[in-house]
Amino acid sequence: MSSISSTANFFDRPETKLLVPPLNFAMVTSGIYRSGHPLPINFPFLEKLKLKTIIYLSEHDLRKVNVEWASRNGIKVFHFRMENCKLPFVENDPEAIAAALQVVVDSRNFPVLMHSNKGKHRVGVLVGAMRKLLQKWSFASIFDEYGQFAAGKEDSDIEFIEIFNSDLQYDPKYAPSFLVSW
Amino acid sequence: MSSISSTANFFDRPETKLLVPPLNFAMVTSGIYRSGHPLPINFPFLEKLKLKTIIYLSEHDLRKVNVEWASRNGIKVFHFRMENCKLPFVENDPEAIAAALQVVVDSRNFPVLMHSNKGKHRVGVLVGAMRKLLQKWSFASIFDEYGQFAAGKEDSDIEFIEIFNSDLQYDPKYAPSFLVSW
Repeated sequence: MSSISSTANFFDRPETKLLVPPLNFAMVTSGIYRSGHPLPINFPFLEKLKLKTIIYLSEHDLRKVNVEWASRNGIKVFHFRMENCKLPFVENDPEAIAAALQVVVDSRNFPVLMHSNKGKHRVGVLVGAMRKLLQKWSFASIFDEYGQFAAGKEDSDIEFIEIFNSDLQYDPKYAPSFLVSW
Repeated sequence: MSSISSTANFFDRPETKLLVPPLNFAMVTSGIYRSGHPLPINFPFLEKLKLKTIIYLSEHDLRKVNVEWASRNGIKVFHFRMENCKLPFVENDPEAIAAALQVVVDSRNFPVLMHSNKGKHRVGVLVGAMRKLLQKWSFASIFDEYGQFAAGKEDSDIEFIEIFNSDLQYDPKYAPSFLVSW
């Protein structure tokens, strides 16, 4: 590091402010983040990401405080109504996942935060579908990543990821850089 | 999505090639990835990341096949000798972590892959130190992320993260964008 000419010390600052990412926050790939439901305590952290878009997977409306925060920050919210898979009564909704992926193949929407309630199952299914269809990951890696967040594998979710398919249409002009095609 | 003029179908391709990320692969933040030890099966995946630098935390030499692959791809390897914390005999090495962080505060090294053997403990400590010193994350979030990869909390690692400190020097001209200062 001999080329460093001007230096600064990180810890010469009196402040001890902290940033609090939302539950299960992680970076999925360049321009895409995932998490559980953001609370107001998470807003200062999220503002540093300069988000343009939120994908919200839930059967519930987004809470008013989140709607107002998004609007104040010029963030567009795509809400896809989707319940957690609870066999044998509720299955994952392929239409909702396909619609969410359609947002993800357009880099004009970036940076994107995709969140559900806990950031475990519904978002895990969406990320899994993305890894499979857009990034050509092996199933071993996809299920591993799903399991890291899900805290206990949900077999029905990973079965869904394996059989899910969709005729995604995208404009090559705005295709994100993580997209893998052969 | 009315502005899409030219479209393409992802699945009109006969190939079924897959990409295999290394064990415990994840994106840490823009320009930084983490994983376990890459194997040759992971090279095609890693080549898509256009890595410039590898940070390797291990008491062992990097395997010959990895050294050759890195050199073929113009990737600079920083090897910091460090054993897994095994109390009461082996403690985490603050010098190695500080030296690795020094690589991370210089964006000229990006994209960087930081890996150990399994991508659980040593890399978890490095990422935790980074979240704390460079990104001002709350401890709750840092320990949560550590635990996601470690598969069972290692108390001695998270204690290390909490007490670790370092006089990092950086050149503001090359400071990475994820760096948070107040």
